[in-house]
Amino acid sequence: MTTGMTPDGPTIGDLGEHAIVARVRTRVPPSPGWVHVGIGDDAAVIGGARNRVDVVTTDAFVEGVHFDRSYVPPHAIGHKALAVNLSDLAAMGAEPAAALMSLVLPPTLPVAVLDGILDGWMALAARHDVALIGGNVSRSPGPLLIDVTAIGRVKPRRVLQRKGARPGDAVYLSGALGAAHAGWLACRLGPAGDEARASAPECVARFLTPEPRLRLGMLLSRSGVVTSCMDLSDGLGDAIRQVTSASGVGALIERDALPIPSEARALFEQASLDPVAAAIAGGEDYELLFTAPARRRRALDAALKRCGVSCTRIGTVTSARELILRAGGSRGPLPEGFVHFR
Amino acid sequence: MTTGMTPDGPTIGDLGEHAIVARVRTRVPPSPGWVHVGIGDDAAVIGGARNRVDVVTTDAFVEGVHFDRSYVPPHAIGHKALAVNLSDLAAMGAEPAAALMSLVLPPTLPVAVLDGILDGWMALAARHDVALIGGNVSRSPGPLLIDVTAIGRVKPRRVLQRKGARPGDAVYLSGALGAAHAGWLACRLGPAGDEARASAPECVARFLTPEPRLRLGMLLSRSGVVTSCMDLSDGLGDAIRQVTSASGVGALIERDALPIPSEARALFEQASLDPVAAAIAGGEDYELLFTAPARRRRALDAALKRCGVSCTRIGTVTSARELILRAGGSRGPLPEGFVHFR
Repeated sequence: MTTGMTPDGPTIGDLGEHAIVARVRTRVPPSPGWVHVGIGDDAAVIGGARNRVDVVTTDAFVEGVHFDRSYVPPHAIGHKALAVNLSDLAAMGAEPAAALMSLVLPPTLPVAVLDGILDGWMALAARHDVALIGGNVSRSPGPLLIDVTAIGRVKPRRVLQRKGARPGDAVYLSGALGAAHAGWLACRLGPAGDEARASAPECVARFLTPEPRLRLGMLLSRSGVVTSCMDLSDGLGDAIRQVTSASGVGALIERDALPIPSEARALFEQASLDPVAAAIAGGEDYELLFTAPARRRRALDAALKRCGVSCTRIGTVTSARELILRAGGSRGPLPEGFVHFR
Repeated sequence: MTTGMTPDGPTIGDLGEHAIVARVRTRVPPSPGWVHVGIGDDAAVIGGARNRVDVVTTDAFVEGVHFDRSYVPPHAIGHKALAVNLSDLAAMGAEPAAALMSLVLPPTLPVAVLDGILDGWMALAARHDVALIGGNVSRSPGPLLIDVTAIGRVKPRRVLQRKGARPGDAVYLSGALGAAHAGWLACRLGPAGDEARASAPECVARFLTPEPRLRLGMLLSRSGVVTSCMDLSDGLGDAIRQVTSASGVGALIERDALPIPSEARALFEQASLDPVAAAIAGGEDYELLFTAPARRRRALDAALKRCGVSCTRIGTVTSARELILRAGGSRGPLPEGFVHFR
């Protein structure tokens, strides 16, 4: 867990704005044909795709709030800044197309850290064919900050939204719950956490380099059976609240169905946390939460088998507007997710 | 020059993230029909316009770098954060359509300041029919920061770019040069600058609430005679460099043609600055610099007379790749613009 920086190498303050932009440009592969004007003008110009609407999202990634440079290496910073935005596109069922990167950099930042951030971004962008079409570089008088705008496309009638869940729908969750939060617990231990991290490599990877569920989102969109969808940035508790609130419904979640990996359970227990509460409240899983009529399970399975990500039924949408966690015979309120400023 | 905040009113830290988003939503007017999904989902969904390409730009507005809250009131912060992005769209010849607002807010920020920022943004957005389609709210451990993405549209063959200036083209500048920089000098004087500000109300207005030259940009685009265009965010010196560098040409600028208003000249002289050098190097004018063949002056004038912004010929594009300032019989290098990190 080192950031790989040489403390006495050059810093951002040694470069001019144009030299920083040049460092980005040398890493950008040739643009696809629909990019009419890319990096280097007042704005980017992109052509639309026929019969598609644009899906646009923005998310800031702030040092000291969303990441800590003492245990998140530069390539993971670049990866996550883009990944959290691609995850939003996935949740809408969109195919990613382009992104803009607004860098706000402290002058004391080592150039090697900037390079690592750019390399982490570019590797993820290359895997998902996301063209970097523009951005901005500013000086920061405080924290390092990367604000990203991502643009995707989807057929108008295939957009997945938070609203649309109906009573009786099954509630599904992709992948594993709580893995990123457990990985975060292990990473923030610093050198003392070497053993914890070695015991939970998948949790660490899910925290540092989450894979946005783009293929899954597109398959869910095309399946035509999904009634609502959202990604888990601020925890399952928050996501369930957002989806049910937008849909005017409630939900009954089955504790024993939650896909909490054993690696994560062990890390939560080491930290004296209740594994279920920690997994539900913990953020940054970037999995997809979605609903579909239970009777359409076969159509859903047919779509999902082409995607390689497991999806688990974790509960049922209810007409009663409350959020219940059922554990065997007992029922209680669902724990909350992460809320900024609180 | 007060920021209008009540020091003991509620702060951002007293609100949750959802309450902050609600404060934005209550101010957003009904969306136009082409906004399929607006604020409140994982991403916004917008329909394209027929025979148009999307123009996308992003710009961060950072406390302590781009503005100082001790003399820039909240409504001006909101206005400028959007205006600088709309100015980029103007420079591309695009019609503005939508924007996303990423707010990074210190918990100690008074809620009244946030409200002022939102009101300043909304007033400008309403004047130019810019729909707020999404955004993000994060906590800041340091400065207040607003990162904006603006989306506009233009016919593919009508895009204005920085490249394209040809030797012999006339170089034009809209509006006044140096006004914003002079206004900044007056504003940062604090209470001691009351007289200076009263003597230069247009400079102060140009600094605090610049009007992006959107109508002009669209007319230049439709005129079909403009060969290159850029907005003046970092000064005329920087803009001329960018345009000539992108076009592989140079320029000869006529000192006596520069439209430096007398208000600004007086403020520069009071600050013991050379008025011409200060006006050329000073940033934030957000005027348009553009080139067109000198023989197409009549077509240009016909387009411009419908716009209400004066444009001045300030020089000529040269094949020699150097930037010269001519003053009567003497010639010297053109002063530079503002460069971040330097």
